[in-house]
Amino acid sequence: MTNLRLIVSGYGRVGRALVRLLLEKGEAVARRHGLELPLAAVVDVDGAAVASGAAGLPLGQIAAGLPPGKGPSTLETWGEPSVTTSVLVERGLADVLVETTPTDLQTGEPGLGHLRAALSHGLHVVTATKGPLVLRFGELNRLAERNGVALKYSAATAAALPALDLGVYCLAGAEIERIEGVLNGTTNFILTRMRRLEETYQEALAEAQRLGIAEADPRLDVGGWDTASKLVLIANGLLGVALTLDQVQVSGIEGVTLDQIRGAAAAGVVPRLLAVAVRDGGAVRASVGVEHLAPDHPLAAVDGAEKGITYFTDTMDRVTVAGGKSDPRGAAAALLKDLINLARERGVKG
Amino acid sequence: MTNLRLIVSGYGRVGRALVRLLLEKGEAVARRHGLELPLAAVVDVDGAAVASGAAGLPLGQIAAGLPPGKGPSTLETWGEPSVTTSVLVERGLADVLVETTPTDLQTGEPGLGHLRAALSHGLHVVTATKGPLVLRFGELNRLAERNGVALKYSAATAAALPALDLGVYCLAGAEIERIEGVLNGTTNFILTRMRRLEETYQEALAEAQRLGIAEADPRLDVGGWDTASKLVLIANGLLGVALTLDQVQVSGIEGVTLDQIRGAAAAGVVPRLLAVAVRDGGAVRASVGVEHLAPDHPLAAVDGAEKGITYFTDTMDRVTVAGGKSDPRGAAAALLKDLINLARERGVKG
Repeated sequence: MTNLRLIVSGYGRVGRALVRLLLEKGEAVARRHGLELPLAAVVDVDGAAVASGAAGLPLGQIAAGLPPGKGPSTLETWGEPSVTTSVLVERGLADVLVETTPTDLQTGEPGLGHLRAALSHGLHVVTATKGPLVLRFGELNRLAERNGVALKYSAATAAALPALDLGVYCLAGAEIERIEGVLNGTTNFILTRMRRLEETYQEALAEAQRLGIAEADPRLDVGGWDTASKLVLIANGLLGVALTLDQVQVSGIEGVTLDQIRGAAAAGVVPRLLAVAVRDGGAVRASVGVEHLAPDHPLAAVDGAEKGITYFTDTMDRVTVAGGKSDPRGAAAALLKDLINLARERGVKG
Repeated sequence: MTNLRLIVSGYGRVGRALVRLLLEKGEAVARRHGLELPLAAVVDVDGAAVASGAAGLPLGQIAAGLPPGKGPSTLETWGEPSVTTSVLVERGLADVLVETTPTDLQTGEPGLGHLRAALSHGLHVVTATKGPLVLRFGELNRLAERNGVALKYSAATAAALPALDLGVYCLAGAEIERIEGVLNGTTNFILTRMRRLEETYQEALAEAQRLGIAEADPRLDVGGWDTASKLVLIANGLLGVALTLDQVQVSGIEGVTLDQIRGAAAAGVVPRLLAVAVRDGGAVRASVGVEHLAPDHPLAAVDGAEKGITYFTDTMDRVTVAGGKSDPRGAAAALLKDLINLARERGVKG
């Protein structure tokens, strides 16, 4: 039985979904994968809950005792106010840091500090947080290599759409020559409504906000930055480069008019906010913008809030993956998947 | 540097494509994955070529010196006439048997004997041959477990379409509740032509044969048996069962009339030869037959000779993968991928 002791950093929607998933799936993961994942600590802005023994925190009591708004440090038996993720990783109580704090594309914090601390102290990292990787991929990757630990981030690339894993595992040994992706469900939902229902951009955006698909401040999505962030992570993970967000040419969907959409429909093509990374000599060119796809392009069928990605390879031809849950439970499922694959590759630790 | 010494069993189109791929990709695989794959022996019906040293056979000379029709035992320096795969695996000269002999769905031979011999002698197996797994999955799986070796067969499930790997790696930790697949390019090509061009079954089949997509004797494909074989392998690998081919309810496309296809088109649905595996209590029900898909079903867009598979899961929602080269080079690429993933999971041997 492999044993990976976890620190879950961030106890928002994804952190909570992960604790519930560990509770729900723990027995099946142990039986099928020979893997136990005790929760050594769970940390939020106000402090942490820290386990007293090797069995970890009692997941049922954590999940039940911490409704939204109540942080882990408030728990009587395990609560430790004020302690931070960076302090906890130094205590030697865990093997993996699972990072679920909110993404900040300007500073990468607080995740960046957490990842640096964890990797420096020999902890593997599994992260759903994009910021640190979008800004400091090269540094973090070297830090992981130097300390002989893994840095896994499939949950940060597109939640349960296995964009990164498809490249890592399913296309191993093939050269990926070009990547095209529809990586943001909100913008795809808006463009699909404009095309199908002839709504204006503002109408479709309002409907997406009403349904909870778009955020009140939708700029990260509609400006193309969420898409660009995912593209950076995927390209860096698969093409052997260390792109940063400022190296991507980004345009969004805010300027798309209903006339343009009607014109595309008349021409029989499908508008998508497309992320593209393509090899160009030793470098990689990356861009995000609206492209008109031929109807037989595999991403032309990826409609509504769904996402998809196509890899063009030398030996395996074109491979497309689409779907995957986008909500916190989907992101938590991607974190669990990374933990299982980490254990497969690194073998017994405990 | 990990070192996995290979015996390639079968030197037909797939075996030849693999030797060429090892030649072409050897340096990149060593650099990126820290993996060397020396060819200890290559075996065909008439005997083998066997390397004299740890560096393995010279791939360039093997590829150049053996045009189609000329077997490895004819090579002057390395040829060893009459020796068989089963004898070679006992010599301790290799870590992995790569099986590429033709599939026989009645007897599973000659692959079945080769796999039994290899697993019993502690060799990992990577196979593109379906027969042994379709008929004796349970036995071979137990044999692999008992001997602490891996049995990998993604190349047997649909060549470069990563049907199996998607489930193994990308959906790890999720419950797969239902699998639906378009797993045979020939039948999908025929049905697509009937729908798009209003050809009869016989006309579309003749065109597929003319293009080399269908074989002269197309029964394995059009009868649904190739699809059913792949479904058995995928379900066994992912759903924890040990189905055999006779447990699948199979019907093919021979009886499909142009009238039926026109009726489906009028109703706005898309006919596909669909493989379905679904959990039913502790068991799994598996079937192959023509189904009419709604136009927004993800496999409705998988047209022509392309293949695709959709997994319905508990935590990750619906995930579909489509595409992937079907020819011998695609199958060889899938074998190479299995070797890389094997090395990742098993670590250093040499």
